[in-house]
Order: sequence, then structure tokens, then C-alpha cells
Amino acid sequence: MRVGFWQFDVEFGQVERNLARVADALAEADADLIVLPEFFATGYLFTSRGELAELAEPYPGGRTMRTLSQIAAEREMTIVAGFAERDGDAFYNSAAVIGPDGPCGLYRKVHLFNDEKLHFSPGGGPLPIIDVAGVKVGVMICFDWYFPEAARTLAIKGAQVICHPSNLVLPWCPDAMPIRALENRVFTVTCNRIGVDIRGDKRLSFIGQSIIAGPDGRTIHRASPDQAELFVADIDPAEALDKAITRRNDALADRRPDVYELR
Amino acid sequence: MRVGFWQFDVEFGQVERNLARVADALAEADADLIVLPEFFATGYLFTSRGELAELAEPYPGGRTMRTLSQIAAEREMTIVAGFAERDGDAFYNSAAVIGPDGPCGLYRKVHLFNDEKLHFSPGGGPLPIIDVAGVKVGVMICFDWYFPEAARTLAIKGAQVICHPSNLVLPWCPDAMPIRALENRVFTVTCNRIGVDIRGDKRLSFIGQSIIAGPDGRTIHRASPDQAELFVADIDPAEALDKAITRRNDALADRRPDVYELR
Repeated sequence: MRVGFWQFDVEFGQVERNLARVADALAEADADLIVLPEFFATGYLFTSRGELAELAEPYPGGRTMRTLSQIAAEREMTIVAGFAERDGDAFYNSAAVIGPDGPCGLYRKVHLFNDEKLHFSPGGGPLPIIDVAGVKVGVMICFDWYFPEAARTLAIKGAQVICHPSNLVLPWCPDAMPIRALENRVFTVTCNRIGVDIRGDKRLSFIGQSIIAGPDGRTIHRASPDQAELFVADIDPAEALDKAITRRNDALADRRPDVYELR
Repeated sequence: MRVGFWQFDVEFGQVERNLARVADALAEADADLIVLPEFFATGYLFTSRGELAELAEPYPGGRTMRTLSQIAAEREMTIVAGFAERDGDAFYNSAAVIGPDGPCGLYRKVHLFNDEKLHFSPGGGPLPIIDVAGVKVGVMICFDWYFPEAARTLAIKGAQVICHPSNLVLPWCPDAMPIRALENRVFTVTCNRIGVDIRGDKRLSFIGQSIIAGPDGRTIHRASPDQAELFVADIDPAEALDKAITRRNDALADRRPDVYELR
């Protein structure tokens, strides 16, 4: 299975331009599964609900889903992409899974980061597993990485590849993802953006370093902090079905829910 | 609070000698809390239950506990040390907490590693919290690090400092501990051993690199892979009471048990 990401510099509010950047990049991608950043079409730094109301889109009906569906059909690939979702009066920080036949999965971010709490409603779960050509693909978004329970839940539900659209500003995630991959014996594909959102007196820099990690904790590829990059790796998702750490240890079967106190 | 570790080359079966190495090292330690390796008095590579029956000791009554109690009283410190425990016909891979007034806590390793499963019974919990001069100290042993639920359980129970006696042979733990510290906003003190156990045709090399990490994911100190080292750091355990990641995020309060599926 060929999995990868398109790390690029999203321009705030320039939806057409950002969608065109994706179409151009993916026209050259030989991949089965591509992860895009969180909020890849709109930018990140919303400053009001009014702005959000203008840029957010419904699932699965909006312009962004239509464009991604067209790319996914033409390229016969599956795309996992973060977007600002509108559902009635509520806004969610969401990720959609779009296959060659169109949108086939939705996840609303459960762990909202910082000022996202001002504008977005938290997702109510579940953390989703989508079948992509016989491979179980899980989805989480950005700050979900901080909480080991998110990736753990996906692994317990059978995820072999965790797709992880991100807009990282804190420094730790690229070092943490190989540990998330290792402790769950899964592949992880984190797609971060690069560049800066400047909105009035607010400014956020994104750290790039999109990363693909493997079930043995190896870093398959880590992108630069500031360069746009399309990257695709050839992985064997069957590796993620083998949870053996040693001949007598299993990353999931050795768990001890009878001892954990995780209230 | 001054916390540290004594990383050294344990000699298999040479209990008197290993105890003397500890007494000598701690005679010079200016510390409140010292972590020793897993199985620091006996060595690791037991090859039979008979051998284990000869070297394992009861808690709190054995020679090892008596020696550590004497050191802890003289030095007015608390020691967390891994030992082979005998309880009736059962053997446990255990860690004891020994304060100036003697043994005050016992933990039996929950996640047994590889061939430990041949000789030892798994602990039945709970993961313990011991009050050390007003600071909540949690204990886990070596391979417990692999399972994020262990450190998470200790953090939820209020641990400010997680003591982690170890005999690491796999390469990943020293990179994982800053993530365990970060995701739980606690201090961690991993004490590994160095050197090799050679027993008949069996051989295990230990990777050293004992590590102290802080609640912000920083590595306070990481020891060498092959040199004996006494190390003590001055930390403020109150830092571990503050679970804020951003002004709107909290490492524990933001957890979403309603969404996690951790059966």
C-alpha cells in the first residue's frame, strides 16, 4: 500500500487556491492513501464565528468534498483531509475520508486545542475506522496525539494505519508519533502544514515535519520544518496485524484493564 | 526535592557485592529520593525457579530490605528498588519503596517481559502511590513503560514523580519516557542498569541511558549507555500538579473517557 502526505503552506481564506495546490500536487502522486493537513482548504486561524460561518462547509455536500471526490476518482486514491465543518448552527474541526466513490467517513475532533474551543464544538466520537481496499484505516486530528487513549482506541478497534491531519504549533508531536506507532504496533501518517497564519494581531507558525512511522517505532520519513513536500512510502499494512513485541509479549493482549484505573 | 538514580553494573547472584556497591554510591548521594535498577541485588537472567528460590526474598523481611532500610535511615532518604520477591510459592518481579523508617510500599510488576513469564507471577495491582515528604510518588517497573495505561493510571491517581526501576534491553524506552512525562505532566525517574548477564548459553546486554524527564517533556538528564553513574537533580514536584498545556487545555481534564474504547 502506497501511503503519503502533501505538506504545504495553506493560505488563510483562499479556498480555491488551496484546493488547486492539492489538485496540482496529487496529479503527480502515485499513492493509494494520501493525508492532507487539518483545515487544508481554509487555513487555521479563525478569529470569529462569522468568518467560520463563511468558510465552513457541510459534509458531504460542500465544494471542498466535491473537489476532493473528483481528485480521488481520477487518481483512484483515498484522501484523508481536515476541514471546517458546518452542521446546522454547530461548527466542528473535522476530517473526511474520500475514496474513489466519494466521501466515506467523517471524524469530528474530540480534543480541541486552545482557542479552537471558542469556535468549535467537540466531537462526540466514535474514533472511526474506515475500510480502504481491505485495510483498516483510523483517523485522528492534530492535538488528539497528545492523549494516548486516542491512538490506543483506534488500535484496539483494529486500525492498521492511523491518518493524522494536523496543524501543529507545539514542538513535540513529531517525536511522539513513533512512540504512538510503537506502543500500538500500527503505521501512522501525520500530515502537518508549513507557513504562518497572520490574522489581525494574531499569528501562528506551523512546524511542518510531517511524519510517517512504522509498527516497530521506526521513522519511515520526516519532512522538513518549512518546505512543501509530497511524500509517498510503500508499506505493508499486514505488519500492523502482528502485535508481537517478543515471542511472549503482545502490545494489545498484554494490556491489563483489570489493573488500570482510567476513570 | 532532590531525585536521582544509581546506574551500575549488577553482577548476577552476587547479592552482597551488589548491596555494597549501592551502599558505597549512596554514601555520597545528597538526595531525597533515589531509584535503583530492577533486580539490582540479584541480577536479571534467572534460568530456573530453583535459582530464583535461592535468591528471591520476602517483603519486607529479607536481607536486601534490611540493608536498604539501614541506608535510607542513615542518609535520611527514600529508595525505590527492584527486587526478586518470594511470597509463599510465588515469585514476583517487585519494587519496594524504603524510607528512613523502613519499607513503606510494594509494587509487583504487572506487564512481565518475555521469559519473565516463565518464572514470575504477574502483579495484580494496584499501581501504587506512596507519600514521600508530602510528594506523591508512583512506581512502575521497566516494561510497564510500553503500555501508556500504566503511567496514565499513576498520573490519574495523583503521582507527581514516577519512579521506574528498569533492566532495559530493547532500545526505545529512553526516547519514550519524555513522552510519558509530557502526556501526563509528571516527572519520571528511570534507573536502568548497564553491563551484561551471561548465564550458560544465554546472554542479555542492558542499555543504560537512565533518564529523568520533566512535565514539559524535557530530558533533565540521560546517562551514558555503558558507564556507572550516580546522578541527582533538583526538581520542583509542584510543577507536576499543574496539568495545563495551554490556557484552555489540561492533560487530564481534557481526557474524553466517554469517547475512548479501551476494553
